[in-house]
Amino acid sequence: MVAMAASTYFFLNSSSYHDMTRNNLRRTPGPKDAHGIIKKNDGSSRSLLAKDLTKVNATEVRANRASFLKPIMMLGQNKNYLDMIPDLGFGSMLSDGFVFRQNFQIRSYEVGSDQAVTTETLMNLLQETSINHLKAIGVWGDGLGLTREMCKKNLIWVMSKLQVAVDRYPIWDDVIQIDTWKGAYGKIGMCSNWKFCDAKTGEILLTASCIWLMMNEETRRLSKFPDEVRSELDEHFTNATLPVIARKWSPHDEMSIVDHVRNGIMPRWSDLDINHHVNNVKYIGWILESVPHSIVENYEIASLTLEYRQECKMESVVQSHTYVMVSNNGKKGDNDHVDCKHALQLETGGGEIMKGWTIWRPKQYENRLGLE
Amino acid sequence: MVAMAASTYFFLNSSSYHDMTRNNLRRTPGPKDAHGIIKKNDGSSRSLLAKDLTKVNATEVRANRASFLKPIMMLGQNKNYLDMIPDLGFGSMLSDGFVFRQNFQIRSYEVGSDQAVTTETLMNLLQETSINHLKAIGVWGDGLGLTREMCKKNLIWVMSKLQVAVDRYPIWDDVIQIDTWKGAYGKIGMCSNWKFCDAKTGEILLTASCIWLMMNEETRRLSKFPDEVRSELDEHFTNATLPVIARKWSPHDEMSIVDHVRNGIMPRWSDLDINHHVNNVKYIGWILESVPHSIVENYEIASLTLEYRQECKMESVVQSHTYVMVSNNGKKGDNDHVDCKHALQLETGGGEIMKGWTIWRPKQYENRLGLE
Repeated sequence: MVAMAASTYFFLNSSSYHDMTRNNLRRTPGPKDAHGIIKKNDGSSRSLLAKDLTKVNATEVRANRASFLKPIMMLGQNKNYLDMIPDLGFGSMLSDGFVFRQNFQIRSYEVGSDQAVTTETLMNLLQETSINHLKAIGVWGDGLGLTREMCKKNLIWVMSKLQVAVDRYPIWDDVIQIDTWKGAYGKIGMCSNWKFCDAKTGEILLTASCIWLMMNEETRRLSKFPDEVRSELDEHFTNATLPVIARKWSPHDEMSIVDHVRNGIMPRWSDLDINHHVNNVKYIGWILESVPHSIVENYEIASLTLEYRQECKMESVVQSHTYVMVSNNGKKGDNDHVDCKHALQLETGGGEIMKGWTIWRPKQYENRLGLE
Repeated sequence: MVAMAASTYFFLNSSSYHDMTRNNLRRTPGPKDAHGIIKKNDGSSRSLLAKDLTKVNATEVRANRASFLKPIMMLGQNKNYLDMIPDLGFGSMLSDGFVFRQNFQIRSYEVGSDQAVTTETLMNLLQETSINHLKAIGVWGDGLGLTREMCKKNLIWVMSKLQVAVDRYPIWDDVIQIDTWKGAYGKIGMCSNWKFCDAKTGEILLTASCIWLMMNEETRRLSKFPDEVRSELDEHFTNATLPVIARKWSPHDEMSIVDHVRNGIMPRWSDLDINHHVNNVKYIGWILESVPHSIVENYEIASLTLEYRQECKMESVVQSHTYVMVSNNGKKGDNDHVDCKHALQLETGGGEIMKGWTIWRPKQYENRLGLE
């Protein structure tokens, strides 16, 4: 999947994972989102209790665990809970008809040197479950999540904006349960939402949302969202929030940033996807190339926001910039957090292919390796 | 896992997958391998009918399919075979006690632009199943396949040599069944063997073998294979063949090779594994960086042989060389095949970190994308 700019506003109606998994849909015709912006529910009468996904945190999970586990506990009181984790399988739709669920076990090659899953793996799983969702509801036609009508019209999905908040990085061998659901993004696109939980404990690990727009595969230009595609997807859409992660940048802050640059980044063959350009997931790796080693080694990404501007082809040469915010007292970040801005630019022509923001916190798993 | 040189010879006793899955072990004390070299069975009385894995091809599978499917067919004559493919699961040992089996579905992000699985993914699955095998037999202690005794002695596995022959590349969504088994490699190491089948048809997709040696994690020097580790593993070892893939290089050929170079390859953060160096799987990506585009775009790797010489750390800068064999009439390759030699070298100091050989054939899946 690709990476293109959305020129429109960015707040959507909201949904609540807990409400959805309890199959307790409180339908309101036009709820306010977390920011008080009222949006109509395009083409669908379904809308869910407004709730900002970023507020669904581990504390809340603990409070809700009894109800979260209820369906499993009902299976048999004598069974050990750990034995009742569903198999990895191919995923399936929940009974509410909106949420696709699939389990994944973190593999040995999906973790970094600190044994925590890599950001790239998390982003790969976003793509994987988003496509499998479309397959499960029977609208998948081909390629990376294309519906049959999209195939007829030579349209592909392009990612416009992605926001991810990681509460805790799963580690090697952890089984994670991924829920994903989709909504309309105004009249021009689609919004995907995800929630990753620890399959054993129900602890929320990650929440994410993104906006997909459409591009004509031949002309490589953005396209309208055709009615034929809308009618394929509409009954499977529910409203969804895109959490807005606080960016601590102010004009004053921008006076005290330090620019780190990495030149000459060239796509590798394995960076290309079946749309014949660099997959959007690979951009996060390029961002990390310009983040100072002291940050990558000691901190982990707590949240990221990526805005995709244009495609990147095999012959491109990319320059990665990371601007680290330094506070007035000369320290990086605040309360042990480090804030960064990012830009990926083409070396020839200088076009921007991505803008990004990351917030980093001290690593949770350093030196975690050891015999049990 | 790492990558170091074996200074010793390279032929091992051989085993046959078909013999193993039929649980029909024909034990001989010291069989000849495919090259007539007789090797003693170190520390184990198990040895199997000598058979070169490279000769187990699709034709043979068809002939053997009846017996191959027998255990499944016995489950119920009325069931549809396609419905009887086991779930993905976490893998398990076969009843013979030597072979670990696990299924994997090829994911959207594990295929290249031609929709065929990437070589890097295949190599990742070699690592994954090799480690899961050690977990299944109960000797895993920590890290990338370390036994408990290895942990006590601060030893890690390092890959010395890898050979892979691909009959057919699985594509996105295919479910592949991976069998793996291990044997002693003389007195100094361990040999891993793999066979990938299409889980629906039983067709053999890939065979591979590699040699693991041991390295002290602190000194980064090769180590002997301690008796304590040997005694942990010995009962789980069976003899195994390392297929020797024909290399068509002669002194005459070497007069007509063309050198392609790619300078300035720098490891990315995501290339490091939990042993704090570049994972051996990443080297294949670097090799591809110097293979001419006309080959990567139109051909696929039919077989590869990689010899690992030394570790590569984050701060290294690597130079990739590919030498394409050109026949006397000026054409690349023979019978539509292209033969290449490869070398990865450190730019500072010039040390060689890998040598490799690949044989390429025309791609099977180009332009395969399309609605069904």
